[in-house]
Amino acid sequence: MTSEHNLRLTALRAAMAAQGLDGFVIPRADEHLGEYVPESAERLAFITGFTGSAGLAVVLADRAAVWSDGRYTLQLEQQTDDALWERLHLIDEKPEDWLVSHAAGRRIGYDPWLMSADGLERFAASNMVAVARNPLDEIWHDRPAPPMGPAVPHDDAFTGESSSEKRARLGAMLREAGQDAAVLSDPAALAWLFNIRGSDMAFTPIALGYALLFADGTASLFMAGEKLPAETRAHLGNAVAVAERDALPDALAALTGKTVRYDPASMPVWFKTTLEAAGAKVAEAADPVALPRAAKNAVEQAGTRAAHLRDGAAVVRFLAWLAEAAPTGRETEMSAAEKLLAERAKETRFKGESFPAISGAGEHGAIIHYRVTQESNRKINPDEVYLIDSGAQYLDGTTDITRTIWTGPGPAPAEVKDHVTRVLAGHIALAMAVFPEGVAGAHLDAFARQALWQAGLDYDHGTGHGVGSYLSVHEGPAGIARAARPVALRPGMILSNEPGFYLNGAYGIRLENLVLVQTADFGARKRKFLRFETLTLAPFDRALIEPALLTPQALEWLNAYHARVRAALSPLLDARSRTWLEAATGKI
Amino acid sequence: MTSEHNLRLTALRAAMAAQGLDGFVIPRADEHLGEYVPESAERLAFITGFTGSAGLAVVLADRAAVWSDGRYTLQLEQQTDDALWERLHLIDEKPEDWLVSHAAGRRIGYDPWLMSADGLERFAASNMVAVARNPLDEIWHDRPAPPMGPAVPHDDAFTGESSSEKRARLGAMLREAGQDAAVLSDPAALAWLFNIRGSDMAFTPIALGYALLFADGTASLFMAGEKLPAETRAHLGNAVAVAERDALPDALAALTGKTVRYDPASMPVWFKTTLEAAGAKVAEAADPVALPRAAKNAVEQAGTRAAHLRDGAAVVRFLAWLAEAAPTGRETEMSAAEKLLAERAKETRFKGESFPAISGAGEHGAIIHYRVTQESNRKINPDEVYLIDSGAQYLDGTTDITRTIWTGPGPAPAEVKDHVTRVLAGHIALAMAVFPEGVAGAHLDAFARQALWQAGLDYDHGTGHGVGSYLSVHEGPAGIARAARPVALRPGMILSNEPGFYLNGAYGIRLENLVLVQTADFGARKRKFLRFETLTLAPFDRALIEPALLTPQALEWLNAYHARVRAALSPLLDARSRTWLEAATGKI
Repeated sequence: MTSEHNLRLTALRAAMAAQGLDGFVIPRADEHLGEYVPESAERLAFITGFTGSAGLAVVLADRAAVWSDGRYTLQLEQQTDDALWERLHLIDEKPEDWLVSHAAGRRIGYDPWLMSADGLERFAASNMVAVARNPLDEIWHDRPAPPMGPAVPHDDAFTGESSSEKRARLGAMLREAGQDAAVLSDPAALAWLFNIRGSDMAFTPIALGYALLFADGTASLFMAGEKLPAETRAHLGNAVAVAERDALPDALAALTGKTVRYDPASMPVWFKTTLEAAGAKVAEAADPVALPRAAKNAVEQAGTRAAHLRDGAAVVRFLAWLAEAAPTGRETEMSAAEKLLAERAKETRFKGESFPAISGAGEHGAIIHYRVTQESNRKINPDEVYLIDSGAQYLDGTTDITRTIWTGPGPAPAEVKDHVTRVLAGHIALAMAVFPEGVAGAHLDAFARQALWQAGLDYDHGTGHGVGSYLSVHEGPAGIARAARPVALRPGMILSNEPGFYLNGAYGIRLENLVLVQTADFGARKRKFLRFETLTLAPFDRALIEPALLTPQALEWLNAYHARVRAALSPLLDARSRTWLEAATGKI
Repeated sequence: MTSEHNLRLTALRAAMAAQGLDGFVIPRADEHLGEYVPESAERLAFITGFTGSAGLAVVLADRAAVWSDGRYTLQLEQQTDDALWERLHLIDEKPEDWLVSHAAGRRIGYDPWLMSADGLERFAASNMVAVARNPLDEIWHDRPAPPMGPAVPHDDAFTGESSSEKRARLGAMLREAGQDAAVLSDPAALAWLFNIRGSDMAFTPIALGYALLFADGTASLFMAGEKLPAETRAHLGNAVAVAERDALPDALAALTGKTVRYDPASMPVWFKTTLEAAGAKVAEAADPVALPRAAKNAVEQAGTRAAHLRDGAAVVRFLAWLAEAAPTGRETEMSAAEKLLAERAKETRFKGESFPAISGAGEHGAIIHYRVTQESNRKINPDEVYLIDSGAQYLDGTTDITRTIWTGPGPAPAEVKDHVTRVLAGHIALAMAVFPEGVAGAHLDAFARQALWQAGLDYDHGTGHGVGSYLSVHEGPAGIARAARPVALRPGMILSNEPGFYLNGAYGIRLENLVLVQTADFGARKRKFLRFETLTLAPFDRALIEPALLTPQALEWLNAYHARVRAALSPLLDARSRTWLEAATGKI
């Protein structure tokens, strides 16, 4: 590791010097600033060795530093060479402050494709220079090719609204805001707007690309031609001009005098500076696709219900199997995850997992972002806590579910039941919430925590994230978390409801269903109220529930939910799974 | 009204023209940008006739407009002349947009003492010109003199920390932030920092003035000399230089090269521009007094408990009296408020009301900011809902309490009891909340609303505001409201807990206690948790409570609270009130 990364660092410094740069910033990001980064854009890993999902490096002529957050402290130390890199925490010593301390006034290069305008703004105290060619790319000789998976049409029968209808609707939004066009750089925004689904990335059916949407409802799509088969080109139609990414600079240069919408929080700053250089007026505003995509229409809602029904059947077959297999001590985290995937693969419209399953037995469950590997894989033992967080992509919807299981055959300790039931009480309090329009997830987050808080307990993650429709399992702009931007919840939004509790070195608990925001009908009252419809269908493990800790209303909710799960799934199950479900959903 | 305001408007336009101004902005604000405005600064009322507590006017040569919010729509129309003024809503048509539409590019004057930097920023699209002399003041010939009440020392026995200790503590904060000095423009900040209490305003014991606090703990206080008797000057000591307000420009001019803290949200922009002109570096940050003042020390906490004990005794004597008087139909909103004031005036350390009592019978209770006048005063009838929201200033603490009463003698209708009990359930849910450090009021607000939301009901005001220590009854920076800045709650903060429900034309419900933020002890756990200690001591009217609507935990809280009220207050009461309290606090 060391000598290889030493050579790379030396080469990078030479490439920087050739461009007259005193420093260079390497964020963990691709050219779309998305959550998932293709191998061809894993620049931070190439130069430092660090493969975590959050980080940044700064290379100066005489020193270099790499940052990550608390989740990755150990991994950062293991994967990087302390002779080459200072290893720092993103909160304790901010990169922008480090730069001011160690390179004040010097020319620090950055790749304008890998930073948003807001991200660059953080470095305002330094002398930041946009590079035309990324010096790291110049020395990365065995760089993997960018993904070139085909993008296919996604049928209106699943989307409920044609691409031309969507473009007309958003075009009208732009006109109303006095905007002539909008930049789109989020591949999930393209997938939604053009009703296409790609295969560039595992788990999320997106095709990497960019677009310009015009106020008249036409658009230009910038995407590698080899990803677009004839069927997709026909689907896109005449109102969508298709071009290679290379055509972007000329397309922006043609926008002189136009007002162009650009999201400084989520889009590469390259767009902003190129538009400004072209004499366009940049209107900073949120990605125009984000809110319309989040509010699912009736067809998408019906689709997600159907997908959750099939997913629920697969999960219940898995749980019924696990109930027999777990106490034997013969299964492993990996074999269990494979069994669940195999059950899902039997379902129609199944396209793959929506993220790598988190299959954590005992102490592994307490690692919030645990991913089982050949090295970490361990047996699932009798009489311990087992957590499985997984999801699937179906053509008609995306799922995400977490269940926490007592493997048996003995009874669960009282303390574990106490912790699980407090998490469940929070899950139910959120599931039962009714709230007026205007309320955001940040205002509801405490409902999911109150039972834990009463015992001096909490969990260090948000309670919920948005979920797409056969699209990203983490979808903005709404969420349920204190730190979340206060985006008001709207009918049609799909969110996760996933409180948890983690006892380091012992076990992890998380109970997750997806919920759909619906209007709540209170008759003639003026104010509009909203509520959650729970989409996910699978029982919570009664071996871990202490009924005395639930209020009568919560217990009533749980019994009604279990009855609904039983009624909905029983017809879809084999006899053995059905028998197990009968017992698992009996009245408590 | 018309001819008088017509003359004033004509005179103002002439004074504007003499200064070369095309327009002038008149906010409803004084030179401290506080909630309460002395008569000498009621410029908006002088020029428009409108006396509401929120508003703004813009005068152009050929047109003029006045704004307020939804609370004041009717009052705005009644008090202003539509031949002179367009009457507009602050949200529907923003003043800054109106100015762009009607006076783009023209010279619009503003008084830099009457706007914060943030407030001015809203008008960035207009050509705003700071005036050296306010043209309205030039034509306001019978303008009342500014208040000149004496400011007296507030004993360390009540403050728990001497002024020199406070100044040393805040001076160290400034040094740590690399700041040489801080501007203070909030009279309540001066009151806290210098341990003085004034008499310039009704209800809030402040003395209008300004200060500069230096990093070495010394300070300059700019306040009219006639407000400072010898005793106060001696109390201020040698480390506090006293000067007239006229000395401010020279004092700021002397700060060349210094870094001076200034709060753009709460301080007149005059300070910012004057500091910049002097060559000082302006460090924009929150008023340094706000957070330290909000977190009451042990002495202040003991003081507020003692004040609430006496206040509770006065309130209970009033409620016992009301229980006999109300069913007779002989009392009025005004006579009841006077009776309560008389009971409070019997208590030691009583200094006056902390705000004008809201005494609203029946439909008046539904007017959230109702203030009884000779004209509006009406009888309190038998068998109706009566709401009284009042508070007092004691040397050792400030109180604020709302109770909602069924006047009897008949029973309350089921719907009223349903509404009251939902409000009470919210009040109790918040009172019982336990939460980790870092949580802000915005994250807890929903606890107080959930029982109402479940029935499709809500209230259009925040759930809680900060309260001072023998100081302002509305004190920043923390609050319990969705819209509140997310200021984390800290031990020692005093907040109100006041959910409500209002049925227009029928009745209003509000149940308010003050609460004190305390640490919650969960033994050896790492994370620090907080909880609320309820300070206010007075029973909730059992005639309006439907026990079946409360959870067992909520009922337990209510019975324990009533038992605490009984035990604490009985020794302080006359026999008749004590007998009433016995019954009013019996187990439900």
